[in-house]
Amino acid sequence: MPNETVEIRGHLVDSLILPKVLDEILSYNGAFEILKIEVGRRRIDPSYAQIRIEAPSREDLEKILRRVKEHGAEILDEGDVTLALAPQDGVFPPNFYVTTNLQTFIRHAGEWMEVAEPRMDGGIVFDAQGREARVLRFSQVKRGDLMVVGHRGVRVVPLQRSTPRNVFEFMASSVSSEKPKGVVIQEVATQIKMAKQVGDKILVVAGPAVINTGAGPHLVRMIELGFVDILFAGNALAVHDIEQALYGTSLGIYLEKGMPAVEGHENHIRAINAIRQVGDIREAVAQGLLKAGIMHACIQHGVEYVLAGSIRDDGPMPGVITDALQAQDAMAAKTQGVALALMVASSLHSIATANLLPAQTKIVCVDINPAVITKLVDRGSFQTVGLVTDAELFFRELVAHLDRY
Amino acid sequence: MPNETVEIRGHLVDSLILPKVLDEILSYNGAFEILKIEVGRRRIDPSYAQIRIEAPSREDLEKILRRVKEHGAEILDEGDVTLALAPQDGVFPPNFYVTTNLQTFIRHAGEWMEVAEPRMDGGIVFDAQGREARVLRFSQVKRGDLMVVGHRGVRVVPLQRSTPRNVFEFMASSVSSEKPKGVVIQEVATQIKMAKQVGDKILVVAGPAVINTGAGPHLVRMIELGFVDILFAGNALAVHDIEQALYGTSLGIYLEKGMPAVEGHENHIRAINAIRQVGDIREAVAQGLLKAGIMHACIQHGVEYVLAGSIRDDGPMPGVITDALQAQDAMAAKTQGVALALMVASSLHSIATANLLPAQTKIVCVDINPAVITKLVDRGSFQTVGLVTDAELFFRELVAHLDRY
Amino acid sequence: MPNETVEIRGHLVDSLILPKVLDEILSYNGAFEILKIEVGRRRIDPSYAQIRIEAPSREDLEKILRRVKEHGAEILDEGDVTLALAPQDGVFPPNFYVTTNLQTFIRHAGEWMEVAEPRMDGGIVFDAQGREARVLRFSQVKRGDLMVVGHRGVRVVPLQRSTPRNVFEFMASSVSSEKPKGVVIQEVATQIKMAKQVGDKILVVAGPAVINTGAGPHLVRMIELGFVDILFAGNALAVHDIEQALYGTSLGIYLEKGMPAVEGHENHIRAINAIRQVGDIREAVAQGLLKAGIMHACIQHGVEYVLAGSIRDDGPMPGVITDALQAQDAMAAKTQGVALALMVASSLHSIATANLLPAQTKIVCVDINPAVITKLVDRGSFQTVGLVTDAELFFRELVAHLDRY
Amino acid sequence: MPNETVEIRGHLVDSLILPKVLDEILSYNGAFEILKIEVGRRRIDPSYAQIRIEAPSREDLEKILRRVKEHGAEILDEGDVTLALAPQDGVFPPNFYVTTNLQTFIRHAGEWMEVAEPRMDGGIVFDAQGREARVLRFSQVKRGDLMVVGHRGVRVVPLQRSTPRNVFEFMASSVSSEKPKGVVIQEVATQIKMAKQVGDKILVVAGPAVINTGAGPHLVRMIELGFVDILFAGNALAVHDIEQALYGTSLGIYLEKGMPAVEGHENHIRAINAIRQVGDIREAVAQGLLKAGIMHACIQHGVEYVLAGSIRDDGPMPGVITDALQAQDAMAAKTQGVALALMVASSLHSIATANLLPAQTKIVCVDINPAVITKLVDRGSFQTVGLVTDAELFFRELVAHLDRY
Repeated sequence: MPNETVEIRGHLVDSLILPKVLDEILSYNGAFEILKIEVGRRRIDPSYAQIRIEAPSREDLEKILRRVKEHGAEILDEGDVTLALAPQDGVFPPNFYVTTNLQTFIRHAGEWMEVAEPRMDGGIVFDAQGREARVLRFSQVKRGDLMVVGHRGVRVVPLQRSTPRNVFEFMASSVSSEKPKGVVIQEVATQIKMAKQVGDKILVVAGPAVINTGAGPHLVRMIELGFVDILFAGNALAVHDIEQALYGTSLGIYLEKGMPAVEGHENHIRAINAIRQVGDIREAVAQGLLKAGIMHACIQHGVEYVLAGSIRDDGPMPGVITDALQAQDAMAAKTQGVALALMVASSLHSIATANLLPAQTKIVCVDINPAVITKLVDRGSFQTVGLVTDAELFFRELVAHLDRY
Repeated sequence: MPNETVEIRGHLVDSLILPKVLDEILSYNGAFEILKIEVGRRRIDPSYAQIRIEAPSREDLEKILRRVKEHGAEILDEGDVTLALAPQDGVFPPNFYVTTNLQTFIRHAGEWMEVAEPRMDGGIVFDAQGREARVLRFSQVKRGDLMVVGHRGVRVVPLQRSTPRNVFEFMASSVSSEKPKGVVIQEVATQIKMAKQVGDKILVVAGPAVINTGAGPHLVRMIELGFVDILFAGNALAVHDIEQALYGTSLGIYLEKGMPAVEGHENHIRAINAIRQVGDIREAVAQGLLKAGIMHACIQHGVEYVLAGSIRDDGPMPGVITDALQAQDAMAAKTQGVALALMVASSLHSIATANLLPAQTKIVCVDINPAVITKLVDRGSFQTVGLVTDAELFFRELVAHLDRY
Repeated sequence: MPNETVEIRGHLVDSLILPKVLDEILSYNGAFEILKIEVGRRRIDPSYAQIRIEAPSREDLEKILRRVKEHGAEILDEGDVTLALAPQDGVFPPNFYVTTNLQTFIRHAGEWMEVAEPRMDGGIVFDAQGREARVLRFSQVKRGDLMVVGHRGVRVVPLQRSTPRNVFEFMASSVSSEKPKGVVIQEVATQIKMAKQVGDKILVVAGPAVINTGAGPHLVRMIELGFVDILFAGNALAVHDIEQALYGTSLGIYLEKGMPAVEGHENHIRAINAIRQVGDIREAVAQGLLKAGIMHACIQHGVEYVLAGSIRDDGPMPGVITDALQAQDAMAAKTQGVALALMVASSLHSIATANLLPAQTKIVCVDINPAVITKLVDRGSFQTVGLVTDAELFFRELVAHLDRY
Repeated sequence: MPNETVEIRGHLVDSLILPKVLDEILSYNGAFEILKIEVGRRRIDPSYAQIRIEAPSREDLEKILRRVKEHGAEILDEGDVTLALAPQDGVFPPNFYVTTNLQTFIRHAGEWMEVAEPRMDGGIVFDAQGREARVLRFSQVKRGDLMVVGHRGVRVVPLQRSTPRNVFEFMASSVSSEKPKGVVIQEVATQIKMAKQVGDKILVVAGPAVINTGAGPHLVRMIELGFVDILFAGNALAVHDIEQALYGTSLGIYLEKGMPAVEGHENHIRAINAIRQVGDIREAVAQGLLKAGIMHACIQHGVEYVLAGSIRDDGPMPGVITDALQAQDAMAAKTQGVALALMVASSLHSIATANLLPAQTKIVCVDINPAVITKLVDRGSFQTVGLVTDAELFFRELVAHLDRY
């Protein structure tokens, strides 16, 4: 019978890798023999297992190997990666290797090399000269690019879950609204401070409800305190923020009084027109037209931002990138070095951002609607903590912690 | 054609009563002639209209009259109320008048008298000697009770909505999660303070998520500040509160650390057993066994409470009223003089309480799940404000306002 | 005191226009005198009111007039519309009239003319020669365009709500999940058939959950029966549909078995690559590569479609318009003559479509998440019916009714 | 160092028991040595492991043992169970063993015996004479009862999850609304048919939305087909069902037309009065007053039912058990032999029922609100399948499958 031997290393038991591997073998009609198993006796000890896999046919064996490699198994005496040319611009070669967001290595000329910019659902392009491999999306591939096909010679490093050591890890992947949020928010503040101390970046993704719920001033304070490096948002955030700065209303409601303004529903359109008239947001700040709010704070404090458009936008506000591919490129270019992404009250932009982040980036997702959080947390990363709560109350509490810094 | 003339008084236009009345007439095949209309020129001026209603048959006319009376229309020269005897204990006479939660008057011997304890879905019992009328529920009616039947001689006073003057009124009946909650919470604090100043009572209805989310200490503080007169809750609130007081966990989670305790899932059962052993909660406080938490605070500060059981309960904790009818009676007995009911993270008990309250009692309903709020707000009272948010963050903010008092 | 006299026509009482107008006057410190009132005695009779409005200042009076005109009030002896030039490309003149989605008339040279393509949040451009006025969005306005400013000489026709005559009207604007859906779906089927009989168009807006829940074959059948004229969707619908047609899976799940496929999570990426290789979807149908599914049915049956991209997209599939403004233009160009828009399991595309539709277009919005429906229904149109239910079960039932046609 | 050796048997790897056990040991500061491990080579082969556990103190070791026993680990040479007397009626002895809903064995006089009626959160009473052990709830324990304390001599059999073989298992514990429901409903129908073929019972728990959404006739048909053995519901289901049978409305809405009835909101109260007048529901059927609906079908077809009251009830309808403890007893008495529980649109009664069921009973939970399903599924049983969908559309589809039987 066709067979192959694989090795697994890491926190085998703790991280459930071993049972998952055995389960995959059995699920696809294979059989296994555990040739060697060394289980670490303490948490930090690595484990090692060598498993011989048999399957009824070569094809079945290939399926099994493909699956177990996603759990980090390596084939003993695996050969080099297989390469093929991209047939056209924007088209991958048939059978191209589809990337994950995990740390990935490919074997070439007998040596393992890490793949740069790991990202979900792309292909791996190989630069034979420079000895570099990196992930491309469809729009980036050019005819003749040398791409990895099949799964031979590719190895991923699965995230290894350990028993939760803090509330952040404990809450990860849970979406209950009945959890003690105060403790989690405190821990998020701690994580943000720690990230800043080692020079990592904090990315905030914010939806328009940040303004509508009155959380704007808290986010402004967080920017002033230096805890925001990058802001991703859509047209609506900028519109409501600037409407609020210019007229005191958001969606026509006076935030300070919670009451509607006469003609308030026109204010957001007039805010767009006012900025279009002076050219763009930066110019509006320079001219003293825009004197408050989140966009103003970003410009004053050197926070980089990307405003990505959507088909539901009014206007748009100048500076909004209306082309989705260009917006993705602009966002991807800024995610390097981000240690923690705080996603608040934004569905579209949060999912788009999560698609671009490697698996080890921590994500904190805050939304009043559990369905939004479920979508993000379902990516399976246990680096994602979901909090079902209100944007204003969340930011107020978070910034109170950061302010004590 | 059968016809009848009705009068309407009040803020006719402002409160939409007039158009509703005309709409009802037309909907049920009637025709109308506006005999007299005097529209107040200022907000505070009362209006008056006299409308002649015609319908193709007496039966149609009766239907129309029945409907328009719910909007406060009075029939000119209406006769006295009609009475009949309850045929058995627990059974109303056929065609009994079904009550609303609005202020209600009945006409007897040519005079109008107010009905005591207005409450939805009951019948009106009439005490001929004492000249009193009040609302009975099924379980309260006795064979031979003199009850109102039909709708002749009954008049209700509809709530008259005016243009919102404050955020409380503006937010009423809206369930959006994208509203500026800070402003509303401030207004709720103001309403609570105002109610206390005039000697009205504050009722809190709290679900177990108040404990699980870590809001317990805030509610305790609110009790200590004297802003809670009555607490309605279920077995679960008492169990989680006492579990937290005795073992530091709620549902097995250490609230201070947000992490699970060893054997934590057993703690709620052990908490019940501990209280059962000493007899009841009050005794546990007296003996010094129970030294903290919401139930402890209620007992120390003389807050009256009703713990009403349900079929999903463990235990129950001693003092929980397991019979639904007895629990309703106990709750009803305490709702007199309540000006504002604050319902947090509780579906079952909130709806049960709302059923018992007259229409003019203000209700603030806080839940992370919009569906719970929709159910309460759909009762149609514009005295109900719904806030979709987290219990802990809500209470923290509310108590911060009350504490500054 | 400054004053002005306005006239209102229509189903004054029934549609609540009169009380709303009086309420606006009082809210903004005005006073009124009803000079004349003629209330129709039957439902179909028009009513008429003439109201003199006084306010403490000219400015207050202007505010009031602005508000009451939104309810359809006309100023007696109102002058012509005021015009101004657009200062730059993409910028409206200051104080431009912000359009609604209601039927709108402007008065020029003493005559009233209807504004073409009424749409929310645009400006009205006036073509002096051709005697035409129409609504422009920001991206369409050119320097020097003659635009309407202020509110003089503009009149809108409010939708006049009548007492519901059928379940469709009765259910409008309600978002309860506890309604008898069978009856509503039957009525939707009737409305679709009626629209087709008079030659009106049916627009379907569909999200990817249509595929994931297994509703695809039902929508295909609806297309084959000729009940779909236009389809609006995003990249994800096309990707999942074609993944399903090519590999039998959607998001890696075999729809027929409900079970995951080996390597299934890669299928959606391979589906995109396969279509990119042949050029586009139409070509894939022509070459016989794509033989089933919704996109295939659209192409075979001449259904026009717009696929609008977003930043959360993989790929995209060829044919997806990635620029938001271009996509809005493409969608706007196809909404003419649409009598009913059926929006299923799509948040982004549904809201974008609703923004483009005039107020009188009927919208049926189906989603399992009440929050999506609330957002659409909150537009305030009582032509929008929301159904909280599952896409597959909805379509199955709807198509069963249509099939019996 | 204190140490103890445990054994584990079963599908060690597949069911993740082994890693969970090792994880518990490490989490609580223990160390382990795997003395023996035999991993089954095929899915069906049992595995065996012998693990020596060390901990810094006896107390730590006890904690670890307590935890690993919940995963089914047995202590080698474990002694007999420890017993103590219940100190009062309704009170367990201190340190009593808190039961789970898993199959449980206790060791007495050197022999293992199974505990009857396994149920969560009770205690185990031991009948020394009769050699029987069973689970008691608080209300059932009497002073002097011989109860199990501590965890020595107690063994539970964890449910062993295997790789999903059918869509039912695959869907278990997932709460996505974007799943292909048609396939799952078909599988539910198959499970119901299989249960009936082997003589097992089907329990239906139904909320009032079953009536309001128009699903009543489908449930009636399911009863007529013989697929319902027991019905658990509340007062509201009975009230709406009988209102519908007597007056054609539910909550005042004509289900056939989806439109409200004149005075419809009074119908549910009149329905209660009508049944109270004749005595009870069974008598109303006997007298020919009640001729249709779910309650009628139950009585005609010998379906046993329990109507359990709550504090939010009107009435109640005669036959509703208003005391929560009595209702729990009545429900518990009927759950023996139930193989599958179908819970539709009911939160309170579903959770109450789930509390009473042993872990191996299959539960299908259908609700339009994902939060309800999350609560049930979070019990952790992978025998629970959640479907986020509409009651009417679910039942229509399910009964169509059952009808083809």
